[in-house]
Amino acid sequence: MIKEGDTVHLKGRKSSFFIILERGKELSTHLGSIKHDDIIGKNFGETVFTHKGEPFILIRPTLYELIMFGIKRYTQIIYPKDSAYIALKLGLTDGMKVLESGIGSGALTIVMANAVKPKGKIYVYEKEEKFLKNALTNLKLAKLDYVVQPYLKDLSEKIEEKDFDAAFIDVREPWLYLENVKNVLKPGSMIGFLVPTTNQVSEVLKELKRLDFIDLEVEEILLRQYKPVPDRLRPEDRMVAHTGYLIFARKGS
Amino acid sequence: MIKEGDTVHLKGRKSSFFIILERGKELSTHLGSIKHDDIIGKNFGETVFTHKGEPFILIRPTLYELIMFGIKRYTQIIYPKDSAYIALKLGLTDGMKVLESGIGSGALTIVMANAVKPKGKIYVYEKEEKFLKNALTNLKLAKLDYVVQPYLKDLSEKIEEKDFDAAFIDVREPWLYLENVKNVLKPGSMIGFLVPTTNQVSEVLKELKRLDFIDLEVEEILLRQYKPVPDRLRPEDRMVAHTGYLIFARKGS
Amino acid sequence: MIKEGDTVHLKGRKSSFFIILERGKELSTHLGSIKHDDIIGKNFGETVFTHKGEPFILIRPTLYELIMFGIKRYTQIIYPKDSAYIALKLGLTDGMKVLESGIGSGALTIVMANAVKPKGKIYVYEKEEKFLKNALTNLKLAKLDYVVQPYLKDLSEKIEEKDFDAAFIDVREPWLYLENVKNVLKPGSMIGFLVPTTNQVSEVLKELKRLDFIDLEVEEILLRQYKPVPDRLRPEDRMVAHTGYLIFARKGS
Amino acid sequence: MIKEGDTVHLKGRKSSFFIILERGKELSTHLGSIKHDDIIGKNFGETVFTHKGEPFILIRPTLYELIMFGIKRYTQIIYPKDSAYIALKLGLTDGMKVLESGIGSGALTIVMANAVKPKGKIYVYEKEEKFLKNALTNLKLAKLDYVVQPYLKDLSEKIEEKDFDAAFIDVREPWLYLENVKNVLKPGSMIGFLVPTTNQVSEVLKELKRLDFIDLEVEEILLRQYKPVPDRLRPEDRMVAHTGYLIFARKGS
Repeated sequence: MIKEGDTVHLKGRKSSFFIILERGKELSTHLGSIKHDDIIGKNFGETVFTHKGEPFILIRPTLYELIMFGIKRYTQIIYPKDSAYIALKLGLTDGMKVLESGIGSGALTIVMANAVKPKGKIYVYEKEEKFLKNALTNLKLAKLDYVVQPYLKDLSEKIEEKDFDAAFIDVREPWLYLENVKNVLKPGSMIGFLVPTTNQVSEVLKELKRLDFIDLEVEEILLRQYKPVPDRLRPEDRMVAHTGYLIFARKGS
Repeated sequence: MIKEGDTVHLKGRKSSFFIILERGKELSTHLGSIKHDDIIGKNFGETVFTHKGEPFILIRPTLYELIMFGIKRYTQIIYPKDSAYIALKLGLTDGMKVLESGIGSGALTIVMANAVKPKGKIYVYEKEEKFLKNALTNLKLAKLDYVVQPYLKDLSEKIEEKDFDAAFIDVREPWLYLENVKNVLKPGSMIGFLVPTTNQVSEVLKELKRLDFIDLEVEEILLRQYKPVPDRLRPEDRMVAHTGYLIFARKGS
Repeated sequence: MIKEGDTVHLKGRKSSFFIILERGKELSTHLGSIKHDDIIGKNFGETVFTHKGEPFILIRPTLYELIMFGIKRYTQIIYPKDSAYIALKLGLTDGMKVLESGIGSGALTIVMANAVKPKGKIYVYEKEEKFLKNALTNLKLAKLDYVVQPYLKDLSEKIEEKDFDAAFIDVREPWLYLENVKNVLKPGSMIGFLVPTTNQVSEVLKELKRLDFIDLEVEEILLRQYKPVPDRLRPEDRMVAHTGYLIFARKGS
Repeated sequence: MIKEGDTVHLKGRKSSFFIILERGKELSTHLGSIKHDDIIGKNFGETVFTHKGEPFILIRPTLYELIMFGIKRYTQIIYPKDSAYIALKLGLTDGMKVLESGIGSGALTIVMANAVKPKGKIYVYEKEEKFLKNALTNLKLAKLDYVVQPYLKDLSEKIEEKDFDAAFIDVREPWLYLENVKNVLKPGSMIGFLVPTTNQVSEVLKELKRLDFIDLEVEEILLRQYKPVPDRLRPEDRMVAHTGYLIFARKGS
């Protein structure tokens, strides 16, 4: 049963809304309004109607939907095709202590926080206050803000914590901070990077080699969508050609 | 500290072993042997040596490594590039009740079980006994066998449970079972499929439409690896061109 | 030296024009006008100016440019990445007799005509008069109209010529005409198809097998463009995900 | 009718041979031998038999087949997916004067020679004698050796000819020779490069910019093959992930 504080995806015929339920509040749309109180107590899968009679299905939002359609973007986000793979490659699981910098709009943080919850924690270093603030709002929408420990700074300063189980770095010049990060990573731990240009890939690889990281890997993931028409099955006309290069390595003993 | 019953990745200079520690047992390799008792009590990141002096780093294995290098394969597996995305797309999170058929070698089951643990459960329908047995051994290696409820049959028979939060079907003719599956899915829930041929994609889409599923999507994911050489960065010469088409849909209200 | 009747690419700082030179005529652009007579007698590589002083380089247009920027499109065209490969795969060379249907906007016809000129010929069957007319205008721009023999009909009727060295079919239902086409192809000759959907691929393959064609191949070509920035080299954000599936086969003995 | 001196593709049930017919000679295969004289006078499409009764269809070889199966490779070749596109992008057509360096195994030279024949010419600079010799043998097989003017040296020395209509450079460090090449290119002409690494792409782009080339483009072409089975249509399991990056530019006025 849906209760106050839940995040709900109201899926209409043409538009979707993601809200956190609060008694006394009302969702206003161009198709009419709905009282939060009329949603609380219902079950996921049921349909509610605006005062103009427009139907919306009540969906328990998947993280995928929240990331793609629910969160507010201040930056280019790390897409699910990449973030899901990153979490698996870093070996994230409940209880892990993970270092992340920067937070962007929190799209990757949501996926990583979900992977290490409830006992693990994502320690985020982000120097742009407006990014951090927005990302934390997005994490709250995903009910995962409690998994995150934010710091308003970058990795050039002292890293407060140590003994991290994994790290992911998505900043313009990751090589500047890599030695700092290595010092707080447990031996045998995985580290990952996303960078958009080949020049950055080369720089990161150079520094990883200099610092004796092992198991270096560079990968890119392409997602192609098809028109879902049984009798005329074919790929969409256009696709995303590039989000970023993924780099992974392991801190040796 | 590493203890009896833990799964450990022994990473050597050229080869890797994945073992579950058991007091009194010994790992024999062509590079010499190591007593399990000499590993118990050490920490991940430390190095142990065979009686011939060959070093192995003790790594807490990531699920990615277990799937790619640790599990025994009786079938083509669902690769991490696909399985990580599937779990995110289905919206899997702690506590969910998920239907899966068939189990193959358990590569996807491991990822899904990790996503819904500790309170959720994956109900697996698999009619080949040898596949089921092998997959459960693989799940044990990943310490996730407790999350799985196996049935030695396919989906043509009565499905024991109901009110599933998500389903994933990876069988030759998914359309034969789709109506059965729909009946045990909660409204608003996601369902996914992996099929290798375009003809199967068309058949699945037809049946999804007939049964009023919504939000149909067909996708494929390509992973390209690069040689990690800073001064001569370039893709590998060859890559996997196809694992399967992913299909997703949602049960409407 | 540039002479009357030549096709010239006037490449400006932001826009391009493709014209056939005719004494007494004038090109009017939003950046000013240029008399054709002021171009005739110049050399390719020289610069001319509009009456407003805007510079345009005189370029001998490549077929690539004509196809991508010069021709008038009434239909989706076959892109150079595909058409260049088709001509090579069909084995087109000077003197060959080629069957094509339909003509679309003539983008492929231009490439094939260039390959078999001056003595070969492309026999085009196209039932839409406006497509045929437009395509012939485009071929004239490329100075290749003399290589083409057009018929205003489709392949369901009697095919006038025989002993073709190669054929390329780009119509909605190629399988309807395949037996007709086979009868006018020389033994050992190549035939090609472009179809947008997987269902069409299956239908074409079925008919090719029924008619004992050999060496069946199905391929798709993806072109990815990069931002040409030395210090920040990376793929463009988006790309064409699909133009069509290419099918090739050979008529056996 | 097939005559002495023709190149013929003998296509058997499992193997193929490409020979230049010479009276009095004999082709010996593990499936028996065939006299050249028994082929001369026949037509393409007919079948001949070895003395052991094994059938071979007489095929007029396409350039595609010669490149993929007929030529002797001393080096990695430029594949048809790339070479066909290169010829179109450079705007090659009958009568053009083209500069190429190096020749590799002549796979690209064959395609370019075919495009500019009979009056054009490819001027090849190759410093490795064994490559040059082998490539010229391959060009002879394609009946295109008459279109090529070879030089046994690289582009660091004086370039003999000038006023080239196009150039293609496939050497390890193209930037070393680019100024030399620019000096012998006609204004408005196209130049192309193939390099395997991203670092080389950056270096070439830098030098192109320094030398005021315009219209810089970087592209890569991926070819994916499908299993040609109508009822189980799907891509092949593996594909070539990388042949090289293509770079194109134009010499301004």
